[in-house]
Amino acid sequence: MSYSGVGSSPGNVAVSHGGKMKLIDRRLKLTELLLRCSATALALLALILIVTNTQVKQIFTIEKRAKYTDMKALVFLVVANGIAAAYSLLQSVRCVVGSVKGSVLFNKSLAWAIFLSDQAVAYMSVAAIAASAESGLIGIRGEDELQWMKVCNMFGKFCNRAAGGTASAVLASVAMVFVSSISAFSLFRLYGGATATQRQPNVAVTK
Amino acid sequence: MSYSGVGSSPGNVAVSHGGKMKLIDRRLKLTELLLRCSATALALLALILIVTNTQVKQIFTIEKRAKYTDMKALVFLVVANGIAAAYSLLQSVRCVVGSVKGSVLFNKSLAWAIFLSDQAVAYMSVAAIAASAESGLIGIRGEDELQWMKVCNMFGKFCNRAAGGTASAVLASVAMVFVSSISAFSLFRLYGGATATQRQPNVAVTK
Repeated sequence: MSYSGVGSSPGNVAVSHGGKMKLIDRRLKLTELLLRCSATALALLALILIVTNTQVKQIFTIEKRAKYTDMKALVFLVVANGIAAAYSLLQSVRCVVGSVKGSVLFNKSLAWAIFLSDQAVAYMSVAAIAASAESGLIGIRGEDELQWMKVCNMFGKFCNRAAGGTASAVLASVAMVFVSSISAFSLFRLYGGATATQRQPNVAVTK
Repeated sequence: MSYSGVGSSPGNVAVSHGGKMKLIDRRLKLTELLLRCSATALALLALILIVTNTQVKQIFTIEKRAKYTDMKALVFLVVANGIAAAYSLLQSVRCVVGSVKGSVLFNKSLAWAIFLSDQAVAYMSVAAIAASAESGLIGIRGEDELQWMKVCNMFGKFCNRAAGGTASAVLASVAMVFVSSISAFSLFRLYGGATATQRQPNVAVTK
């Protein structure tokens, strides 16, 4: 069974393997940066689309204005996307600084902090989207048994734009879910040297 | 910088480190088994609490029966918890078989499959809970602006039991989120041996 695709010639294979790992590291860092930048842009777009969304409708003599604060799930989505955008921006800056310095993440405490934050932000984003999607579905189809009427037949433009905002939030959360897997990789591979050692007791990893 | 807490005496430290890793492996396997069993039981409890939940109310001359199918989010929660319970049960059996055989997960394909499945089930559970919580909040507080009336003042017993089911689902999803981190650890540490090799070019990991 191979841990790392290393073959049977011990002399120079480790060196070539080091080069391969450096290449993987570079690609991974670039992918992480692209995903974090995409998450920032998409979460910000979702936030803007939802916050600026409004529609006025004349119902008989009453003027009714639809806005995102009418639906608590959309308020949650705005807050969640605000946090996600700010967090992803900060992490993008960290990635750029790391790339400029050429450093690779070997600090376990920092790797743990990034892993836990990424997980929290990804789950929060998914939860906010699910809550908004649920409210949106009630708005589109209604819940007849509970007499919650559909509202999207009256406020079609508002609903369409809210759906656009939610779609942007979905793409942002997909990026964040992938990023959280990358940060899990960056953290847990730091614990992997031991496994190799365990398999071959006469090989030691030094400080 | 240390990869694995290994000291500077290469001779026997690797062996003692191997023992430490075996201990960590045992504890991790036990934790994983306990979490997967808890997730199975809690998801099943949530499913039963919600599916068997019903309340009949006489409103003037009309008899009104509340059931979980009245709220689409609860149907999603039932389906999600059914999938989560079945999946967690299967994974618990795999953990027990693995423990009996004394094997440690070194197969990358299997580790990837478990990691991806765990991630999917955890995110699905969180999404189902968020959708149900959103519907529940509308049921409790109403959405005045959209004229979605609160219904929990009429069907208090039904709402309380649905809240109990959702709480059980929340605990199950917490267990699944932790389990998905353990499977991420089990997968990505398999990529760590390479990092150690990279740091010390004359150390090779054999097949």
